[in-house]
Amino acid sequence: MKIKNQDFLKKENRSLVLEIILNQGPISRAEIAKQTSMSPTSASRIVASLQENKLIREMNMSSEGIGRKATYFIPNEHSVFSIGVEIDQKVIRIGLMNFIGKLTILKYFDYQSIDPVATVQFIADHILQMIDDENLTSDQIAGVCIGLPGLIENDKGEVKLSAQFDWKNIPLQEMVEEKVGFTVFVDNELKLKALAEYISDPEPKKAYMAMIGFGSGVGSALIKKGEIYRGEGNFSGEIGHTIVDPYGIYCPCGNFGCLQTYIAEKFLLDEASKTKEIENIQALIIEYENGEKWARNIVDKAITYAAITINNVVCVYNPDSVVLAGSLIERFPQIKDQIIEKCENQMWAPVMKTFQLRTTKTGEDGVVIGAAMIVLQHFIKNIHEKSGV
Amino acid sequence: MKIKNQDFLKKENRSLVLEIILNQGPISRAEIAKQTSMSPTSASRIVASLQENKLIREMNMSSEGIGRKATYFIPNEHSVFSIGVEIDQKVIRIGLMNFIGKLTILKYFDYQSIDPVATVQFIADHILQMIDDENLTSDQIAGVCIGLPGLIENDKGEVKLSAQFDWKNIPLQEMVEEKVGFTVFVDNELKLKALAEYISDPEPKKAYMAMIGFGSGVGSALIKKGEIYRGEGNFSGEIGHTIVDPYGIYCPCGNFGCLQTYIAEKFLLDEASKTKEIENIQALIIEYENGEKWARNIVDKAITYAAITINNVVCVYNPDSVVLAGSLIERFPQIKDQIIEKCENQMWAPVMKTFQLRTTKTGEDGVVIGAAMIVLQHFIKNIHEKSGV
Repeated sequence: MKIKNQDFLKKENRSLVLEIILNQGPISRAEIAKQTSMSPTSASRIVASLQENKLIREMNMSSEGIGRKATYFIPNEHSVFSIGVEIDQKVIRIGLMNFIGKLTILKYFDYQSIDPVATVQFIADHILQMIDDENLTSDQIAGVCIGLPGLIENDKGEVKLSAQFDWKNIPLQEMVEEKVGFTVFVDNELKLKALAEYISDPEPKKAYMAMIGFGSGVGSALIKKGEIYRGEGNFSGEIGHTIVDPYGIYCPCGNFGCLQTYIAEKFLLDEASKTKEIENIQALIIEYENGEKWARNIVDKAITYAAITINNVVCVYNPDSVVLAGSLIERFPQIKDQIIEKCENQMWAPVMKTFQLRTTKTGEDGVVIGAAMIVLQHFIKNIHEKSGV
Repeated sequence: MKIKNQDFLKKENRSLVLEIILNQGPISRAEIAKQTSMSPTSASRIVASLQENKLIREMNMSSEGIGRKATYFIPNEHSVFSIGVEIDQKVIRIGLMNFIGKLTILKYFDYQSIDPVATVQFIADHILQMIDDENLTSDQIAGVCIGLPGLIENDKGEVKLSAQFDWKNIPLQEMVEEKVGFTVFVDNELKLKALAEYISDPEPKKAYMAMIGFGSGVGSALIKKGEIYRGEGNFSGEIGHTIVDPYGIYCPCGNFGCLQTYIAEKFLLDEASKTKEIENIQALIIEYENGEKWARNIVDKAITYAAITINNVVCVYNPDSVVLAGSLIERFPQIKDQIIEKCENQMWAPVMKTFQLRTTKTGEDGVVIGAAMIVLQHFIKNIHEKSGV
């Protein structure tokens, strides 16, 4: 109930000046003061303090004009780094992001996560190795964020349920923090990917961006004015278990007709295997394109349900943009095209023209990018606590 | 990109002081200054200004203690009024709310809205009559908000589509403003009802409250930390056209298997009429309770889909409370009980215990209450512009 008093403003202003330099640098003290309505003295004081902490540095600008040259400031990209990690089906991705939001290293490791303890050890070893290889000191690391599919309680950093790995109630944040010694966050992969997509998009920002992922599972995520919509326990958007036919296919969760049973990879392969042993989705798509009747029926049904999913997500969230993601979209553009075409039939007419539809631009790297970005965001917002700036 | 400067703070502080007096009055200047971290001089200045505008008044408090008595302030409940209107199927409700959020008058009129021009005239006449009857002056009226079902573009005050009345692209705000001369808002009825329910609830506030309405249509609404979640065009939550079976019942919208076809009144009566001419839902429920097989089948199916709806809304929004509303819930508690029982079967297990489930407390008056409240909220937030306070 407290009003925003001077003390609060001061803290907010520090983060704000840093954000302006990150987004607009090179920029002068005068311009910062103008944009923020701060006094030149306050702007100079904050800039000096950020410079002392090596988060920003001066830049020499040649000028055509005459008179005293202004000093310009840019972020010091090598000052602070963040680490993004994705635990995926058969691969672990680890990326290092510099202070201006660029991934400087991104490594893929073939790794099948089964035992959480082993996975934690694997991740921690590779993080520490990466920091060592890059000659970074631990105080240059803003933190680590790990993204994975499932119900992730991000405030506790706990994996409540991840069906893909058969993990339940795993205190992943605590386990990794113990090994690496930095701040660790844990989050749902699709939410991180949606954030990455939102921030990376050069187009004017949308107010309500929904992402829908079709791959090993089905999920959705919503970015509302730059913020992840989480819900009470961070499992909003878990559409895989919305019921789209109460007399439909049996789902291991105990219900009939959960959306995932019509479209997630495992279920498509289960159906295919009743006709022919099939190794993976790529093999199924080949059969489909060869015109095999059984493969056409399975894939056509999945396409119909994907279009229905887009309709249902749009009806519920009323977004102004929808971004399609996931391996089915990213690896099989011909399937993506058919899903979009099918939307013409399946969308409720009044919502048809209310949003832009596109596919991801960050692709397979999106989760790592989003994970590293959320660490940086947290660092910038809490700059007054962390660095005493 | 501007920071929150002094000028912004001043405006915000005025609204804040007024809110504190509204929520906590009787309260002293000293206590206001303490709670807001404002200087006593600033607090006194704002209080004096609010008092001059008759929005608050002094209250005499007897004191057991010695020394100079503090002056306490309370809101002046007769200073400003707002008007809430609901356009429902066969009734129009109009309520007058005083400055402390109490409905002082609530009138129901039997009225079947067909022609928007006639409806506007009817509403305007009754609003002006009500103001006249109460001897209010026009500068005591903060404004009017009208709630109705459908796709309502609240920023323009336009009814984009209301299937119940067969209205399309009706500039309702403009039409009513012309007749009454006050500020008019137009909004979706379920969103207003959800807001009323959130504000009226004496229980500790939830962060994410979802309302689901089962009646002439099916809809949902989300209140996130006290604010209505709207989406890009204010038609989030339009779950009536989410598809729950692509080979299901044909919906007038042109799709098969829209949720509303399984549960909205009109569709239940359509199905019933294939067996027996039935006048309304009440008659159907009587047949159901008499054990008529056909009525049992129709109502049982609706109950199943209602439970599925709750599951689907919970999976998407991840709320910490769910409030059931609408005539099916409010008028037939035995059906409501069965829907809740059915949830045991239909909910995805991991989300089962993550929310509180209850029914509305505001009942049939909820839309009018929410509509009047949103006008008051707007008045308080913009107090510096409106009154020069």
